[in-house]
Amino acid sequence: MIRAAVVGATGYAGAELVRILCGHPDVTLSVITSRQYAGTPYDAIYPALNGFVNLDCLGSAAADVAKNADVVFLALPHKASMAMAPGLLDAGMRVVDLSADFRFKNRDAYEAHYQPHACAHLLDVSVYGLCELYGEAVASAELIGNPGCYPTSVLLPLMPLVKAKLVDPTTVIADCKSGVSGAGREATHATHFCHVNESFKAYKVGGHRHTPEIEEQLSLCAGAPVRITFVPHLVPMTRGMHSTVYVSLASGVGTGQIRQCLESFYHQKPFIRLLPAGRFPDTLHVKGTNFCDIGWVVDPGSGRLIMMSVIDNLVKGAAGQAVQNMNLMFDFQETAGLGGVPYPL
Amino acid sequence: MIRAAVVGATGYAGAELVRILCGHPDVTLSVITSRQYAGTPYDAIYPALNGFVNLDCLGSAAADVAKNADVVFLALPHKASMAMAPGLLDAGMRVVDLSADFRFKNRDAYEAHYQPHACAHLLDVSVYGLCELYGEAVASAELIGNPGCYPTSVLLPLMPLVKAKLVDPTTVIADCKSGVSGAGREATHATHFCHVNESFKAYKVGGHRHTPEIEEQLSLCAGAPVRITFVPHLVPMTRGMHSTVYVSLASGVGTGQIRQCLESFYHQKPFIRLLPAGRFPDTLHVKGTNFCDIGWVVDPGSGRLIMMSVIDNLVKGAAGQAVQNMNLMFDFQETAGLGGVPYPL
Amino acid sequence: MIRAAVVGATGYAGAELVRILCGHPDVTLSVITSRQYAGTPYDAIYPALNGFVNLDCLGSAAADVAKNADVVFLALPHKASMAMAPGLLDAGMRVVDLSADFRFKNRDAYEAHYQPHACAHLLDVSVYGLCELYGEAVASAELIGNPGCYPTSVLLPLMPLVKAKLVDPTTVIADCKSGVSGAGREATHATHFCHVNESFKAYKVGGHRHTPEIEEQLSLCAGAPVRITFVPHLVPMTRGMHSTVYVSLASGVGTGQIRQCLESFYHQKPFIRLLPAGRFPDTLHVKGTNFCDIGWVVDPGSGRLIMMSVIDNLVKGAAGQAVQNMNLMFDFQETAGLGGVPYPL
Amino acid sequence: MIRAAVVGATGYAGAELVRILCGHPDVTLSVITSRQYAGTPYDAIYPALNGFVNLDCLGSAAADVAKNADVVFLALPHKASMAMAPGLLDAGMRVVDLSADFRFKNRDAYEAHYQPHACAHLLDVSVYGLCELYGEAVASAELIGNPGCYPTSVLLPLMPLVKAKLVDPTTVIADCKSGVSGAGREATHATHFCHVNESFKAYKVGGHRHTPEIEEQLSLCAGAPVRITFVPHLVPMTRGMHSTVYVSLASGVGTGQIRQCLESFYHQKPFIRLLPAGRFPDTLHVKGTNFCDIGWVVDPGSGRLIMMSVIDNLVKGAAGQAVQNMNLMFDFQETAGLGGVPYPL
Repeated sequence: MIRAAVVGATGYAGAELVRILCGHPDVTLSVITSRQYAGTPYDAIYPALNGFVNLDCLGSAAADVAKNADVVFLALPHKASMAMAPGLLDAGMRVVDLSADFRFKNRDAYEAHYQPHACAHLLDVSVYGLCELYGEAVASAELIGNPGCYPTSVLLPLMPLVKAKLVDPTTVIADCKSGVSGAGREATHATHFCHVNESFKAYKVGGHRHTPEIEEQLSLCAGAPVRITFVPHLVPMTRGMHSTVYVSLASGVGTGQIRQCLESFYHQKPFIRLLPAGRFPDTLHVKGTNFCDIGWVVDPGSGRLIMMSVIDNLVKGAAGQAVQNMNLMFDFQETAGLGGVPYPL
Repeated sequence: MIRAAVVGATGYAGAELVRILCGHPDVTLSVITSRQYAGTPYDAIYPALNGFVNLDCLGSAAADVAKNADVVFLALPHKASMAMAPGLLDAGMRVVDLSADFRFKNRDAYEAHYQPHACAHLLDVSVYGLCELYGEAVASAELIGNPGCYPTSVLLPLMPLVKAKLVDPTTVIADCKSGVSGAGREATHATHFCHVNESFKAYKVGGHRHTPEIEEQLSLCAGAPVRITFVPHLVPMTRGMHSTVYVSLASGVGTGQIRQCLESFYHQKPFIRLLPAGRFPDTLHVKGTNFCDIGWVVDPGSGRLIMMSVIDNLVKGAAGQAVQNMNLMFDFQETAGLGGVPYPL
Repeated sequence: MIRAAVVGATGYAGAELVRILCGHPDVTLSVITSRQYAGTPYDAIYPALNGFVNLDCLGSAAADVAKNADVVFLALPHKASMAMAPGLLDAGMRVVDLSADFRFKNRDAYEAHYQPHACAHLLDVSVYGLCELYGEAVASAELIGNPGCYPTSVLLPLMPLVKAKLVDPTTVIADCKSGVSGAGREATHATHFCHVNESFKAYKVGGHRHTPEIEEQLSLCAGAPVRITFVPHLVPMTRGMHSTVYVSLASGVGTGQIRQCLESFYHQKPFIRLLPAGRFPDTLHVKGTNFCDIGWVVDPGSGRLIMMSVIDNLVKGAAGQAVQNMNLMFDFQETAGLGGVPYPL
Repeated sequence: MIRAAVVGATGYAGAELVRILCGHPDVTLSVITSRQYAGTPYDAIYPALNGFVNLDCLGSAAADVAKNADVVFLALPHKASMAMAPGLLDAGMRVVDLSADFRFKNRDAYEAHYQPHACAHLLDVSVYGLCELYGEAVASAELIGNPGCYPTSVLLPLMPLVKAKLVDPTTVIADCKSGVSGAGREATHATHFCHVNESFKAYKVGGHRHTPEIEEQLSLCAGAPVRITFVPHLVPMTRGMHSTVYVSLASGVGTGQIRQCLESFYHQKPFIRLLPAGRFPDTLHVKGTNFCDIGWVVDPGSGRLIMMSVIDNLVKGAAGQAVQNMNLMFDFQETAGLGGVPYPL
């Protein structure tokens, strides 16, 4: 049994981490922190967890965390993470950071879309925690940059094909749709029930900060700079993310090669479910799970490949993938704590 | 490990049984049946369960079930259950029936609201499976009449107080609200998204068949015939049931006695969570769980006791309670298979 | 054509007033105010109204309003209204106030539940704007206390029967359910989509400030002090309010008298729709309208009368009723501006 | 005043026609038909309309319709329309058909995706009722093929630019999202609340029959055959359609030309609202209206044009546009019956 701390435990990703870690067979949840709710019992904030979490939130994080944990999950806003990570690493912790602060290799790309980086040397050390792609590096990492939800949902269907050069990465259009929990727990106009219900809309068109994250990964994979078109939309539902990805096939490539490539790449990857031909994924089928379900079809009219993926944005898109990373780092079973039977509806 | 069969596995209660039994540490799910989907792989019907259930639905139930199971869950419509239960019992199965067919002690009450009973002698044998009330009888039962969802949500807050004569059961008004999954999987106008969304309404006012079920239990408890007022309503949500129960206090009874009675009665009952004063239950906090959360207040104006309870209608209101009954029948831990950490949202 | 001002035009009740007044045949919307959005074009706040409202919000209200309007709607929080109303009345305006500040006759009741009253002499002058009950007084009123949403939905089914002494008002239990727009436009945890979706719960049990408002009206009607039990609940939908009201029949009263009383009382009241026996109202059927649909049944078990009413909380529960009051005050057709054909879904 | 008939009045498009025609200043709704509900009062099916429609549904349509109407709206399934339209035209009616039967010029395209055409000569006579494009032809038409909802939402943003050769129509990708009412009133698994709620998914990928309809119109406009990629998705909401359209700019074209072209084309078109730069449309803002709101941006990364449009699929996507066509055919004001003030939420 190792001891885990969740820093920023009252946001939605933090709460989902608490849920998963409470049920994890190899982990004791030892510390939870929250600036806003310091001193408050956790189940006063999330009454669903009454009887499962008997911890109060701590306020001043670093010292207590370092003494009482073997692994630390940082579920903080961008910038707050990079202020805290170096100290934790120095104290010998292994760190899984859910912000964008350690996702980039290219410092310039990070700084162009976020802010000056306070510990850029760690960008060389950190591993991009997309487990299905970088599992080996994750296993020995001290610091994980846990992927964004949109990048996870776009890269998982696309990366095997880009690596195998079956598609032209410069033609990628990713039309993505997210449930409202992706906007976080803060009460804003954008998350008011009456503004979300019966509403569907795009947001941050042409300017969402997950764009450079996806582009860096695709570029690394393709061995050349890749720009994409990415449009996120908001769906009136709590959890779930659906990405429809359009990409041109490389010359001469057909359905058979696509299927073969994906099946071979995702063989024995426990959280990827490839759908049979003619079936398309549904966010409802992965709700509350760490699965990414993937379907695709070659458009008869245009010859383009259309790929669809679904994840639960809070699980495979955040907390679940973070725990999957921890499992690999500590040589636990990859599915430990993440293997609950999905709800049929 | 025992073997369990689910007869009627493709309805919502059946699907929830499949989910729970798949994750149960002491059970192997050995047989699932469905007249409508005979021969179909289960995960073609519920794709969420892809990778967890590798069974096809069987069509002709009785013979296959008897050979391959130690316990049988009947998730069938009323009437279909009583046609099947006697044969299974004769073959030595233990049976948990989720229909109304074995919930009543009073045959006349059953027949007045349902139909002529085909095996009324079993009404003396069957045990009403409200585990918190009848746990001992359940343990040795061969046949369980698993309670209805509304009766479960109304009786759990009320029964301890009726038993202790702290309230006057003849004054009970139960105003209950259910999510749409309570209406079952069948596609009807009443379950069409566009008729449910942005809609709130009462239904079957003064005529719902859960009324006599509640009344029989209250009468047994009070030692005298009790009639109640019960109005069910439909809420635009998938899962969840909320009951607001109004009842007059017995003379001289105050808040302290109410709390003491409930705390004493539900001490160490793992699925009952009593809320502190001033907190009211929320269906969201029990979604996907076998919990019943209970809150209450004495109305300052009228002096009436107002009790509120929430359950997940498919879990504590159906499949979860059925498994809880099985756990007691086979001397498993009461929470086995039912102890997953709740989702924070 | 008269000129109307809406003070507090960016809250939900204010926005609904703007919508209705824009389409009113006898009114020009001349002034809209909003402290928070002073200087902002209205359709930047409510883009749906692009092309219909070409006004900017004014900030400092009183002077501009008095110069440019014949009638003023105050859609302000409690307390803000009573600071503003006297000046407007002095300037010759007729005022419809949507707060609680002028709803009470009994100053003590108001002050016990709200705050000290700054202009209590106006409580004798103001008329409680439940048009179906007080239509004549409304016609000549200078100041209307527009009823609360819950009181409207509870009083409309009940008042005719209380007046006719067909029911015992001391036995009233009102179990009410509201859509989220009733909580207003402010972004709070309680209105966050993820806390509302798939959630049903009671709130302010035994302490909601609409209780004394209902009680005062019932007491006036019954000629004796009446206390009731009232529990409000929150429904995951935007608009709509459903009240289920339980009350004991007076001795010897039967269904026929109930129907006759209601039909006679609501004969030619354009916004009340009495449902035929066996039909129960649905919030979906009054969405966006000024209707109150009413159904009822005598509970066969207990003999209690169960009444159900539905309104759109923002229309008949707020802005629509306010305009209906204005129509009566200015001798317009009662349905003017309120007669649009309802949406079938 | 003319007399209008709605054939197939109980489906969702039919019901929306009934709503609009009931409130139309120049029309009397004289006949409504429904095979399924012949003899039933309309407001028993749609209780919201109680007090507004006092007609019973007729069963056998043709004869009664011809005697009692000047214009006939056919809100029937494909195939049923083409069986009925010729007789109505022969009897001197003007016909607006909401099915696909008269939308195509190219008989082969129709037959490849639907069925053999029973009266293909009418394809030369009928006018594609996209009013903003074909308004003049509509004015003198006897038979209108009312556009599909998806084609309306895709063509309105795109057509002016294709006509002006500012974009390359062979690069169009239309990622579209529809509310559930688009699936019609029939109760199916796909429309069951519990399958839609918290679900987002694509459907009929690469095979939806609105593809050839869009392609024919784009081809006519471009003067050359155009194939597109079109993926429809289902959103958990009742009304609304959102299309995100990706298209490559013609060489040298910039934002200014795009804006100028759209503004010029849609100048004084009463139902098109072009959003200012940086604003994106939201289905909530057009709910219940005949508006199409359009926003766009040039993607900084790829240089592609991204256009977004929203409509209410039952209004501008069906019944509203049908009435707009009728208005043009009978020289009524184009907005007659369609000009209600939108709801702010």
